[in-house]
Amino acid sequence: MKVLGVVVEYNPLHRGHMYHLDSSIKLIVPDFIVAVMSGNFVQRGEPAIVDKFARTEMALKAGIDVVIELPTVYAIQDASGFATGSIKILDATNVVTDVVFGSESNDIKTLERVASIIVEESEEYRSSLKRYLKNGLSFPNARRYAIFDQISKEGIDIEQIKYPNNILGVEYLAVLQRIKSQMRAHTIKRIGSSYNDERISEIPSATAVRKSIRFGEKILGIPRFTHHILEREFSAGRGPVFVEDLFEFMRLKMVILGREGLEKLYGFNEGIAKRMIKAVENSHNMRNFLTKTKTKRFTFTRIKRRALYAVLDINREFVKESNEFGPQYLRILGFTRRGRKLLRIMSTHASKPVITNVSKFNKALEKRSVNVSLAHQQLTLDLKSTDFYSLLFKNEIERKVHRDFCKPLEIQ
Amino acid sequence: MKVLGVVVEYNPLHRGHMYHLDSSIKLIVPDFIVAVMSGNFVQRGEPAIVDKFARTEMALKAGIDVVIELPTVYAIQDASGFATGSIKILDATNVVTDVVFGSESNDIKTLERVASIIVEESEEYRSSLKRYLKNGLSFPNARRYAIFDQISKEGIDIEQIKYPNNILGVEYLAVLQRIKSQMRAHTIKRIGSSYNDERISEIPSATAVRKSIRFGEKILGIPRFTHHILEREFSAGRGPVFVEDLFEFMRLKMVILGREGLEKLYGFNEGIAKRMIKAVENSHNMRNFLTKTKTKRFTFTRIKRRALYAVLDINREFVKESNEFGPQYLRILGFTRRGRKLLRIMSTHASKPVITNVSKFNKALEKRSVNVSLAHQQLTLDLKSTDFYSLLFKNEIERKVHRDFCKPLEIQ
Repeated sequence: MKVLGVVVEYNPLHRGHMYHLDSSIKLIVPDFIVAVMSGNFVQRGEPAIVDKFARTEMALKAGIDVVIELPTVYAIQDASGFATGSIKILDATNVVTDVVFGSESNDIKTLERVASIIVEESEEYRSSLKRYLKNGLSFPNARRYAIFDQISKEGIDIEQIKYPNNILGVEYLAVLQRIKSQMRAHTIKRIGSSYNDERISEIPSATAVRKSIRFGEKILGIPRFTHHILEREFSAGRGPVFVEDLFEFMRLKMVILGREGLEKLYGFNEGIAKRMIKAVENSHNMRNFLTKTKTKRFTFTRIKRRALYAVLDINREFVKESNEFGPQYLRILGFTRRGRKLLRIMSTHASKPVITNVSKFNKALEKRSVNVSLAHQQLTLDLKSTDFYSLLFKNEIERKVHRDFCKPLEIQ
Repeated sequence: MKVLGVVVEYNPLHRGHMYHLDSSIKLIVPDFIVAVMSGNFVQRGEPAIVDKFARTEMALKAGIDVVIELPTVYAIQDASGFATGSIKILDATNVVTDVVFGSESNDIKTLERVASIIVEESEEYRSSLKRYLKNGLSFPNARRYAIFDQISKEGIDIEQIKYPNNILGVEYLAVLQRIKSQMRAHTIKRIGSSYNDERISEIPSATAVRKSIRFGEKILGIPRFTHHILEREFSAGRGPVFVEDLFEFMRLKMVILGREGLEKLYGFNEGIAKRMIKAVENSHNMRNFLTKTKTKRFTFTRIKRRALYAVLDINREFVKESNEFGPQYLRILGFTRRGRKLLRIMSTHASKPVITNVSKFNKALEKRSVNVSLAHQQLTLDLKSTDFYSLLFKNEIERKVHRDFCKPLEIQ
């Protein structure tokens, strides 16, 4: 039995995603497809345009059999943390045999070599890392430069790992190596617009699609079912939710936290806390704030992620533990009729509890080897994130909490 | 030299306050008048209708010579904490000779006797207190009933200390006794509408005045200068600020804090946290939330105060220390030309540093015996409260932080 595993955000699902899925299917010819998907907050440090339930429906309509939620603590981290959560989830299913991800270079050998540098942590790599840290670089940046040093010595073109999908690919491969996963990794070549391209082409970027939504333009490059789902959500007043909608809360929250409060959170040091507080105090909207905070290395995405850490109270210890021990449950957001079969197999084989009913969470934890306190922290954040997100809806009647306590979506 | 000390909120200043001040002046015939005044948040657990700078101006226009800010940590506590902060500030000036407060009964002997019960903590009182606590009453309620037991034994009518001004009076007197203050206490009889009366009469209640403002009705019973100041503030878009304006932020904040987060704050136990979370999750505005949370003992005011503790992150340890050690500075909000003289005397005689310039705060702390860490916590909360409050203004241009770094108001 071949089971394809993919990592997605579908924010929202567009033709590029469809192409990617079709190519993966052609490559693997799987019996089933499992996707691990970000919840209501996504890796670029933003709320998703529509909520995880609507995006799960898109995934199922696109041909995914089972959708598992990537816990929020991983979904809003950088490439390394995001990869840690998603690969560990796919591995924990104990049914996924093949993982496919997109890559600009589509040269998996090189990406694997780069990954092994991170995993093996040679003497040379470590001393180079230490040197950069000593020079005052942040850990992610120091690590990047240490990797560049190593790969340029091996004659690998460092430009290769400056592309976002290659970077993420390297991180996926590093996690696979580290946990000695049985899953086979494959890449397919990414086509169409690049990540941040705002111009709509036949294969659009999710950024371009969101921009069309924001400015009320015709949305091009999305399948008919995405259209229907978006229309339904928007007319009910459940979205679209934009990062701008966080601004007022974020500003007040950061003023109350103050510099000392921020410094206790993940991703903040004195300098970053100071810079962000000063910027937010003098801004009247999100764009303003981001522009005032940005530096060459402190990109919009990094700032937005940190803004989310402040909004959601993400503390350092929790992220550290989560990255060390991995996700403590497999939360099922939805499945197809076909997927139900796979779900049954998964429920008996998975190394972490499979949660289809959040209100039975505590009972589910008893069954398998789980770090119970960490599991609670992770789930609590997921539930809070859903509630918080729902309270941002424009339609007051839709501002309801506890949406996570509904049954998973099941479609034919 | 006679210096009259009064404790005020002036939210906003109306004819009743003027009458109260005139009566106090007639009673004491002081050379100077010092007021300690709540900042941007007041004892009923609400943001003030206009900010502390505008209300300071009202106070000075009314004849107060020096206005000192009651630090936020005291201003938003119950009668006991409020009295602790305000009396200790007046005492720390080392210039105030006479304190006058309003009282429904105007029978200071009885109030002093009740205060002494609290202060002396007789064997009998303590065992009665213990019994009520064992029966599951909260500390404030248990304390209340223990006091009732004692005073009814002495033949004092317990109805006497059910009136809000008598209650507060007892707490003032208790603090005066406890710190063995040299200041003499006096009461004057409260006249006019009772505290919560919403009907406007010649002597209005502040509640009635705020209600007129809220519903855009003609504001009766306030002096001309209050009128001018309110008009100016409103037309600039600096207020009116209502407790309703906190709702969206409070709801999102409470959802993120969750039950566990709330339980770490001052004033929350498991039951209260549970009740407030459940109510806020199912409410669409402040009134809704308050009505859903209210019980016979858990009054609107108590709920609103706790909502503020959640909004402003007021933790238990900080309140405990503040009540034990008292305010660590005398922050001057404004003074008259006459007051400048008194301020000079105060600056040399006060037992805590007199702060006229917040940016020189650290330097001021060096001079006198101060719990520096507590002073920082208290001032930080005051500054955050001002910033938070300013960010609630309807006029976006007025949403500026750091208003506390302006010079104190000085008028002729």
